[in-house]
Amino acid sequence: MKREIQKPEGKLGILTPGMGAVATTLMAGVIASRKGLAQPIGSLSQMGTIRLGKRTEKRNPLIKDFVPLASLDDIVFGGWDLFTDNAYETAMKAGVLDKHQIEEIKDELINIKPMKAVYDHKHLVNLTPNNIKEGATKMDLAKQLMEDIENFKKANNCSRIVVLWCGSTEVYTKASAVHQSLKSLEEGLKNNDAEIPPSMIYAYAAVKLGYPYINGAPNLSCDVPAIVELAHETNTPIFGKDFKSGQTLMKTILAPGLRARLIGLDGWFSTNILGNRDGEVLDDPGSFRTKEVSKSGVLDDILEPQLHPELYANTYHKIRIEYYPPRGDFKESWDNLDIFGWMGYKMQIKINFSCRDSILAAPLALDLAIFMDLAKRAGLRGIQEWLSFYCKSPQTAQGLPAQNDLFKQLEKFENTLRFLEGEDLITHLGLDYYENELLA
Amino acid sequence: MKREIQKPEGKLGILTPGMGAVATTLMAGVIASRKGLAQPIGSLSQMGTIRLGKRTEKRNPLIKDFVPLASLDDIVFGGWDLFTDNAYETAMKAGVLDKHQIEEIKDELINIKPMKAVYDHKHLVNLTPNNIKEGATKMDLAKQLMEDIENFKKANNCSRIVVLWCGSTEVYTKASAVHQSLKSLEEGLKNNDAEIPPSMIYAYAAVKLGYPYINGAPNLSCDVPAIVELAHETNTPIFGKDFKSGQTLMKTILAPGLRARLIGLDGWFSTNILGNRDGEVLDDPGSFRTKEVSKSGVLDDILEPQLHPELYANTYHKIRIEYYPPRGDFKESWDNLDIFGWMGYKMQIKINFSCRDSILAAPLALDLAIFMDLAKRAGLRGIQEWLSFYCKSPQTAQGLPAQNDLFKQLEKFENTLRFLEGEDLITHLGLDYYENELLA
Amino acid sequence: MKREIQKPEGKLGILTPGMGAVATTLMAGVIASRKGLAQPIGSLSQMGTIRLGKRTEKRNPLIKDFVPLASLDDIVFGGWDLFTDNAYETAMKAGVLDKHQIEEIKDELINIKPMKAVYDHKHLVNLTPNNIKEGATKMDLAKQLMEDIENFKKANNCSRIVVLWCGSTEVYTKASAVHQSLKSLEEGLKNNDAEIPPSMIYAYAAVKLGYPYINGAPNLSCDVPAIVELAHETNTPIFGKDFKSGQTLMKTILAPGLRARLIGLDGWFSTNILGNRDGEVLDDPGSFRTKEVSKSGVLDDILEPQLHPELYANTYHKIRIEYYPPRGDFKESWDNLDIFGWMGYKMQIKINFSCRDSILAAPLALDLAIFMDLAKRAGLRGIQEWLSFYCKSPQTAQGLPAQNDLFKQLEKFENTLRFLEGEDLITHLGLDYYENELLA
Amino acid sequence: MKREIQKPEGKLGILTPGMGAVATTLMAGVIASRKGLAQPIGSLSQMGTIRLGKRTEKRNPLIKDFVPLASLDDIVFGGWDLFTDNAYETAMKAGVLDKHQIEEIKDELINIKPMKAVYDHKHLVNLTPNNIKEGATKMDLAKQLMEDIENFKKANNCSRIVVLWCGSTEVYTKASAVHQSLKSLEEGLKNNDAEIPPSMIYAYAAVKLGYPYINGAPNLSCDVPAIVELAHETNTPIFGKDFKSGQTLMKTILAPGLRARLIGLDGWFSTNILGNRDGEVLDDPGSFRTKEVSKSGVLDDILEPQLHPELYANTYHKIRIEYYPPRGDFKESWDNLDIFGWMGYKMQIKINFSCRDSILAAPLALDLAIFMDLAKRAGLRGIQEWLSFYCKSPQTAQGLPAQNDLFKQLEKFENTLRFLEGEDLITHLGLDYYENELLA
Repeated sequence: MKREIQKPEGKLGILTPGMGAVATTLMAGVIASRKGLAQPIGSLSQMGTIRLGKRTEKRNPLIKDFVPLASLDDIVFGGWDLFTDNAYETAMKAGVLDKHQIEEIKDELINIKPMKAVYDHKHLVNLTPNNIKEGATKMDLAKQLMEDIENFKKANNCSRIVVLWCGSTEVYTKASAVHQSLKSLEEGLKNNDAEIPPSMIYAYAAVKLGYPYINGAPNLSCDVPAIVELAHETNTPIFGKDFKSGQTLMKTILAPGLRARLIGLDGWFSTNILGNRDGEVLDDPGSFRTKEVSKSGVLDDILEPQLHPELYANTYHKIRIEYYPPRGDFKESWDNLDIFGWMGYKMQIKINFSCRDSILAAPLALDLAIFMDLAKRAGLRGIQEWLSFYCKSPQTAQGLPAQNDLFKQLEKFENTLRFLEGEDLITHLGLDYYENELLA
Repeated sequence: MKREIQKPEGKLGILTPGMGAVATTLMAGVIASRKGLAQPIGSLSQMGTIRLGKRTEKRNPLIKDFVPLASLDDIVFGGWDLFTDNAYETAMKAGVLDKHQIEEIKDELINIKPMKAVYDHKHLVNLTPNNIKEGATKMDLAKQLMEDIENFKKANNCSRIVVLWCGSTEVYTKASAVHQSLKSLEEGLKNNDAEIPPSMIYAYAAVKLGYPYINGAPNLSCDVPAIVELAHETNTPIFGKDFKSGQTLMKTILAPGLRARLIGLDGWFSTNILGNRDGEVLDDPGSFRTKEVSKSGVLDDILEPQLHPELYANTYHKIRIEYYPPRGDFKESWDNLDIFGWMGYKMQIKINFSCRDSILAAPLALDLAIFMDLAKRAGLRGIQEWLSFYCKSPQTAQGLPAQNDLFKQLEKFENTLRFLEGEDLITHLGLDYYENELLA
Repeated sequence: MKREIQKPEGKLGILTPGMGAVATTLMAGVIASRKGLAQPIGSLSQMGTIRLGKRTEKRNPLIKDFVPLASLDDIVFGGWDLFTDNAYETAMKAGVLDKHQIEEIKDELINIKPMKAVYDHKHLVNLTPNNIKEGATKMDLAKQLMEDIENFKKANNCSRIVVLWCGSTEVYTKASAVHQSLKSLEEGLKNNDAEIPPSMIYAYAAVKLGYPYINGAPNLSCDVPAIVELAHETNTPIFGKDFKSGQTLMKTILAPGLRARLIGLDGWFSTNILGNRDGEVLDDPGSFRTKEVSKSGVLDDILEPQLHPELYANTYHKIRIEYYPPRGDFKESWDNLDIFGWMGYKMQIKINFSCRDSILAAPLALDLAIFMDLAKRAGLRGIQEWLSFYCKSPQTAQGLPAQNDLFKQLEKFENTLRFLEGEDLITHLGLDYYENELLA
Repeated sequence: MKREIQKPEGKLGILTPGMGAVATTLMAGVIASRKGLAQPIGSLSQMGTIRLGKRTEKRNPLIKDFVPLASLDDIVFGGWDLFTDNAYETAMKAGVLDKHQIEEIKDELINIKPMKAVYDHKHLVNLTPNNIKEGATKMDLAKQLMEDIENFKKANNCSRIVVLWCGSTEVYTKASAVHQSLKSLEEGLKNNDAEIPPSMIYAYAAVKLGYPYINGAPNLSCDVPAIVELAHETNTPIFGKDFKSGQTLMKTILAPGLRARLIGLDGWFSTNILGNRDGEVLDDPGSFRTKEVSKSGVLDDILEPQLHPELYANTYHKIRIEYYPPRGDFKESWDNLDIFGWMGYKMQIKINFSCRDSILAAPLALDLAIFMDLAKRAGLRGIQEWLSFYCKSPQTAQGLPAQNDLFKQLEKFENTLRFLEGEDLITHLGLDYYENELLA
């Protein structure tokens, strides 16, 4: 049965805390696509199709023709950043996009100027910002953010807002008492509790106003009981965390393949070399730890060593990220897998992935914003696990194990869309093509 | 609703036309596993688990405890080969297994002696056999095979038989008139029609007797209307073709990942270096052509260029197999992928896969034999598309496009088992964990 | 004792038969360097230094300050091509250089227009030219070329000329009777002997006029007794063949390393993927054969299997070149080496080299032209083996084995320059630093 | 003029402080070679040839037939270790050699029992030894070592001794005042100066007795003025340090190739994964620092950024060593090179080297012992720079820059042998083959 979904009328404001390489690549790509200068490749919301019904029916509409999504033409960008550079300046410095391509949309980019950001040296150590808010308490800062959002919404005549964290990875923090309830969090904000990182202040501000919040980095942000509680109270979708863009994307493609075939795994060594601001931040051990935890979890969920101890209980998994300036944003990952098969015989897989961090992340950022807006209009609130497909470390209901297998995530995503529109779910059973083959 | 399935009582004979590296590695592994000297790693029938019900139920039985499968203890091996070497001699020469490990099970292997094989120089050119059948017509040869099978069954006190082609890749042949009906095929066998390759004579013999037939090589064998017709007539499961073991396995893991993310593909270059008998045979352009066709098809089905021409219509796909003696069975594949993402920016993936051909193929061979025996006992006949998971080029109903995506294949396989046992199919929708999140 | 060398006064004309990617990249780079827009990286004649005397003397002048070389400012380019595109058009199509960089020197490039080329379908099959000479006999064509050269020299006010083959690889030809003496060659030219390829007609024309001739491709051109004889007669330096740019460069770096350490070699598999005109031409088996022979020889000379049969007598060496359009000029080579060490234990080396064909070849082309002009002025004639450093398949005196080890080639090159200028040759003995260490 | 060299009469004792994987692989290989069970591949002293005279003379004797070397039959092994395992036990645990191969020479190996070793926790932190000497002062320990050596020599009827450090990498130490003169060192030994690491105590003991000492690890050992002074006093050859076996070998092969061609280098990232005791020790930051310094230096010497700042002044060089147990001794290095050529265009080289640490090191250890014994008999004392070929960080005369280019090192080595035997040095000039080509 089809679900009631509000139409995407009016403008959608996408506000990014953090206007660095990923955010400006997102902005540039959307603007260029609008002008017919580029294609939003990698975005399911823009270019994806979805199979409906049986294989032989050949019904494969575009996703955007199947569910009611905001149009690129209706998107307005804004954001906050620790530095005063506008989107044009940042894009030029980031070294992601061809300079000639940036020049073509200079007029639009130059007008996207960062609002002053919330900053806390305790949570981010390797940078020296020049564009930050002052406030007596964290609650005070949250209120400033809420004002920023409402001012932006009004100034740009938006009907809806989505807030999307594109900032740096904060220092590793574990959820503690202050994060356990909305009450304790609000008290913590008033008391300047040190355990509340800037990203969580943004999450609070957005969700308090009822605007979907997404966390594209691995730090603790909306994935604490307090924000979940608030999301239920204000009927707001939240989700995260950490865009699944490069090496982890590859890992959640390959690991399900090994698992499908029950190929044993002695070890998986992953290293990355990159030279952008992300690499600089991750050179700090605290920030690296946050990233490492986010990246490490995926194997266990996929391989299920508890079910297959003879194959996966002794898997040695090591991840390194190395700051290496010659590469800039054009990072490279090297993976070495020591696997074993039939009778224990050893084999190896080695992968070089020359990828561009921001190029891979931008379409994920766009899709998350677009689908979170859909979720809001479809009356979904709280954790949107069906968007796990986009995240390294998907948020789930308390106690529910995450699914990191990219292909289960894709099926979850597609079947959710089918469910929303009242179409049959797909199971790939397909015995109906072979009725003649089943004896009574 | 649970389906009626006969119990796997008595012995199961597995007969392999072709007793080379793959077949003897299969045999050695099963024997060693029976003795506790090794583990049948990679075999879903022996070590696989299957999730039942919701994630939170934590029901994950072994597949062999979920559906009634033949036990390794009840398997008896036999086969035919172009050369007189017994399984011990072949295993020693093949260079796949450690010689000390082969010695431990010498007694069993030495007794597996090849029956005389059907040979036709037109269909296999690079070898000089010394152990072949004589016969006035191909039908005559088929009858000899049927006698071989029935003699073996009786001599070994088997209750069931499966025939599993593990022979070399034959020269490329297209299906023609003689293959279109059982009648024309039987006439062709009597008239020595040149278009009927040896492997098809084995297929005919097995299926005529009602024994499941599987084709592990890429040549035309049971995938013609005539054999499908016979399979329906004798209520026999058939399936193929071409064990999906190395580079193509990797391709059907990675390509679904690219497709899931709508990452564009300019080109995919794949080369293999290997030095075993397989490599020698594939040095013949005719045999290589057969393999190339089998390997090439997988991308199109997965990427669906007709739905995404801007991403996949111009994909340049090139496959090479190079005979390179230093490597023996320990082959290596190198894949280079030229991909593009957001706004068309180019990236690259390069993969080195050092694998062992026969180590990867043996568990597939075992599973196919075991599950085809299950199919027979479950009253399934004709094409067993649910076993696509195991093949590079899965056989399907007339006009039905194959599914080569490993993960869709796995789901098809698992949901078929769930269906047979009357369990709920899994869709990964999972909204029931979040009932609270859906507003009215 | 220092050798008498004429000063490089006046202009030097560099004429290239073949004005494709390599030639135009050479031209663009020289022009851009002259204007300070780029650096001629990779060119020893422009940026190289040479150590003189003892390590502790720290005398390391630029090579161009040590021996009298033509200045970039004095170089004038011209050439012949099978197609009418001028250097600007070709550079834009070749996809080697950034289009914005080409635009900066458009004025100069657009004026370098190809003269009509000599063509023979028998020797080059995959192209369809539109700018070719007509002539009753090959001698007639040679005379037209000589006129072209002299006209160019006069028109451009050059004092010296060098002719540098930058054309495609011709179909494989072995030296035969017609190539054995100047007399037979000249008769062959008059009789249109089919065994005389176009490149040899250029060689004849240049050397007949006394202008140095270099062959940058692997075909038979100046490396036949007839041209050597002519070179002696006209006191002209000649040399070739085949610019040592990418994979073979790497091979002649690595193989000496293995040989130095006596590391055994079971096999070396090399494949290349490229999508430029070169790749297209080499898709023809005849042209590929020419290239294969040129590339294959290097290992034997370096490894000397006759001296170390236990290490190198059974080395399996296989080379593949694959036309793969997605890559254009930005080719990639993959090398797999199966090596063995102490007690026979096996190891592996695998190399991915993402290189740009023309970027690697251009500085070699420039240096060869510059140093051949030096040779002429220094009174050297015939084969210039001291320039082996630059070629995949260096021409040597009759019966003398070539040296392909890049490091011996470099030492030969440097010691020749030292010899010309009367400096001590360097042996790396260095015991003079340790006089105190030698007991009587 | 040929130099006087004493004949290698009687037995040569090779004593290794450190009887781990490298030392036992060395011992096993020598013993197996003596019995004809294996070949000492990689050893120039055993299998190397040397070219004498002109290329056309074809004089290429075995090195061991050209200079008088100790025979493998005359070698006796002994050593010290922190653990009590004999050479058989260690070899079995090390996982380098095939267990069946070790069993064949068990009798010899089992009798090579480690003497108690000198240990100092300050200099080596990740191990817990069980076989160590007690002594009031470091001088006292040195005397015990001297007794050990003389006892071994007598017991085994040796005429000569060489001491070869094969122990672990000690914590990074810089040379300080105590190392500056023999007098201060001897006082330090008596006063238990903390700056004197165990390896230096071995060096002192050996050189004091006049026995050649070699340092196969990167720590400070014989490369201090005090030991050089002692070496001159006792007419003893010394040399080190750090066997150039795996990734650095590769680096000193490739970097000279880039330098030869003046290919620019933006960055070189090197990582290693290994799981042997070496990897465990290097997981300690202090020991890693020692290794890092040893490995880092090679690029600067080879590339000479001071001569070519535009190519090499901004090279970013980063080295990582990662403990990764699945690999054991079968380590893997991954190198990523970001290079640039003509006009600044960027290219990449990526190398996977699957090597076996001890297999690569063993022949170097053997050669160093054999050639140091030659040096002693030839009347060479102090630093033996001509053996730079074997070391990552070659010791040189005060103020003399090292040569790390493998090919210059090889030439230095070969020309030294030619010098010792009075043969012409080779310069690769080779103009004498072309007398006819030089005009007057």
